[in-house]
Amino acid sequence: MKLALVVRTDLGMGRGKIAAQVAHAAVAATLASLGGPACYSWLEDGQPKVVLKATSAEHLQDLAGQARRAGLPVELVRDAGRTQVQAGTVTCCAIGPAEAAQIDVVTADLALL
Amino acid sequence: MKLALVVRTDLGMGRGKIAAQVAHAAVAATLASLGGPACYSWLEDGQPKVVLKATSAEHLQDLAGQARRAGLPVELVRDAGRTQVQAGTVTCCAIGPAEAAQIDVVTADLALL
Repeated sequence: MKLALVVRTDLGMGRGKIAAQVAHAAVAATLASLGGPACYSWLEDGQPKVVLKATSAEHLQDLAGQARRAGLPVELVRDAGRTQVQAGTVTCCAIGPAEAAQIDVVTADLALL
Repeated sequence: MKLALVVRTDLGMGRGKIAAQVAHAAVAATLASLGGPACYSWLEDGQPKVVLKATSAEHLQDLAGQARRAGLPVELVRDAGRTQVQAGTVTCCAIGPAEAAQIDVVTADLALL
C-alpha cells in the first residue's frame, strides 16, 4: 500500500510551502479514506508515502483524471493563497492510499521530488 | 487553530524527503486528535499548517518536551530509514492542532522552513 503525493514544480514554491501542501493532501486523503480497508492496511504498513513531481496545472489535473478513471481515491489541494501563490491555485494531489501497483499505473512516469 | 510541523534541517534531507516527513507528522497529529474539539475546529478552519525549522535532534526533542509540558499534543516522527537517513532517526515533530497562541509560546523563536 502507498499514498502518492504529486506536487507542482512550476509554481516556484519554497520547500516549506511544498511540505505544507503535501501535508494538506496527505491529511485530506487520510480523512477521506478513514474507516476503509485501504486506509487500515496503509496505516498498518506505516503509511508509506512517495512525493512526485508534476510540471503544470494541466499535468496535475490529467494525472488526477487518470487516477479517478482507474478507481483510485484522489484529493486535489487548492491553496488558500495567503502566501506565494494565488488563491485557488491547484498545488498538489494525493492518489491513494491504495495498492502500490495500482498507483504505479498512473504515476510510473513521474520523477521523485 | 493551527498545526505546527517542525523539521530538522541538519540531516541534509531533500525537499521531497522533507515533505514526506512533514506529511507523516501531520497525518499522525490528525489521527491522534481525531474526534476531539481541537481537531474539529482546526479542520473547520481549513487545517492551517506552519512548517518550521529545528537545528538538531536535541533541539527537536527540547521543543517536543516544552510542548508536552504546556499540555499540547505532540507527535514525533522516526524515519523508517529506507532512504537518506538512518532507521529510527527523529526527523520531524507535530505540535497541535491547538490554539495558535498556545503553540506560539513554544515555537515563537523558530524560523519558517
